[in-house]
Amino acid sequence: MVILGIDPGLAIVGYGVIDYKAPNFRTISFGAITTKAGEPINKRIATVYDDLRTVIERYHPEAIAIEELFFNTNQKTGIQVAMARGAIILAAEHCGIPCFEYTPLQVKQSVVGFGRAEKHQVIAMVRSMLKLGTELKLDDTADALAIAICHAHSSASRLGPYFNQK
Amino acid sequence: MVILGIDPGLAIVGYGVIDYKAPNFRTISFGAITTKAGEPINKRIATVYDDLRTVIERYHPEAIAIEELFFNTNQKTGIQVAMARGAIILAAEHCGIPCFEYTPLQVKQSVVGFGRAEKHQVIAMVRSMLKLGTELKLDDTADALAIAICHAHSSASRLGPYFNQK
Repeated sequence: MVILGIDPGLAIVGYGVIDYKAPNFRTISFGAITTKAGEPINKRIATVYDDLRTVIERYHPEAIAIEELFFNTNQKTGIQVAMARGAIILAAEHCGIPCFEYTPLQVKQSVVGFGRAEKHQVIAMVRSMLKLGTELKLDDTADALAIAICHAHSSASRLGPYFNQK
Repeated sequence: MVILGIDPGLAIVGYGVIDYKAPNFRTISFGAITTKAGEPINKRIATVYDDLRTVIERYHPEAIAIEELFFNTNQKTGIQVAMARGAIILAAEHCGIPCFEYTPLQVKQSVVGFGRAEKHQVIAMVRSMLKLGTELKLDDTADALAIAICHAHSSASRLGPYFNQK
């Protein structure tokens, strides 16, 4: 099952594509869509939409997993990230790919084993599970791969492959 | 100058199309795009995008004016409205129409004359300026027309038509 994980944002949209055949993971691709702070918001939103469609059309994921948003400190940034998230969900919808949402807590629980895990623990686990080394640096990209892993675990438990394989 | 004013939302997107030849206003159309609360968010976002493109392609506005977002009470609703706003701005961008943002304060100041005007005062002024009667009921639609009027005033003062006409 090819899964595209997305860490939503406006300046940086992290993405990671993995193939999951329980219990094995294979990394297909990861990277980030970036937009420039100086550009008008409409151009930035359009870049996120266009570049994400390119990623979807290149890797043909069967599912897209995206992190849920929570606002805390900066309201203006929060609104802009939510707008970018609208464009991301629209790109998925226009490509006909089902989209699944997970909270940061669910992602950490699924990848590290407990919901209060630190960022460096998430990166370490993603590296270990996907057999990646120091080429995985960017937080946003590691988060995107973590979200994809979370969806893999979640759909595996929904479909019950271990039981079926018995 | 044909202007499309938009009051962003997820359940209801109010829109109003006016033609402004200073100092005269003509109402071309107004209404609302609606989405159902029970539907998945991706379908609702896609409906907002598709229906707005239909409105743009029908009336060929030269400018789109949209109200700025501020979050106050319900964070979840705020995120969803911001996501819909991303889809609205993307539809404008995909149709090649320039998009302008105004705060609620700017809109009230432009239409009623003072920033702390009440909702019923905005509706009364919109009715009067656009020669509309009780057919204009919905708050969101009146707000959309008010935003369009605000952009008309704003671009008139930028272009200085009164000075040019002397």
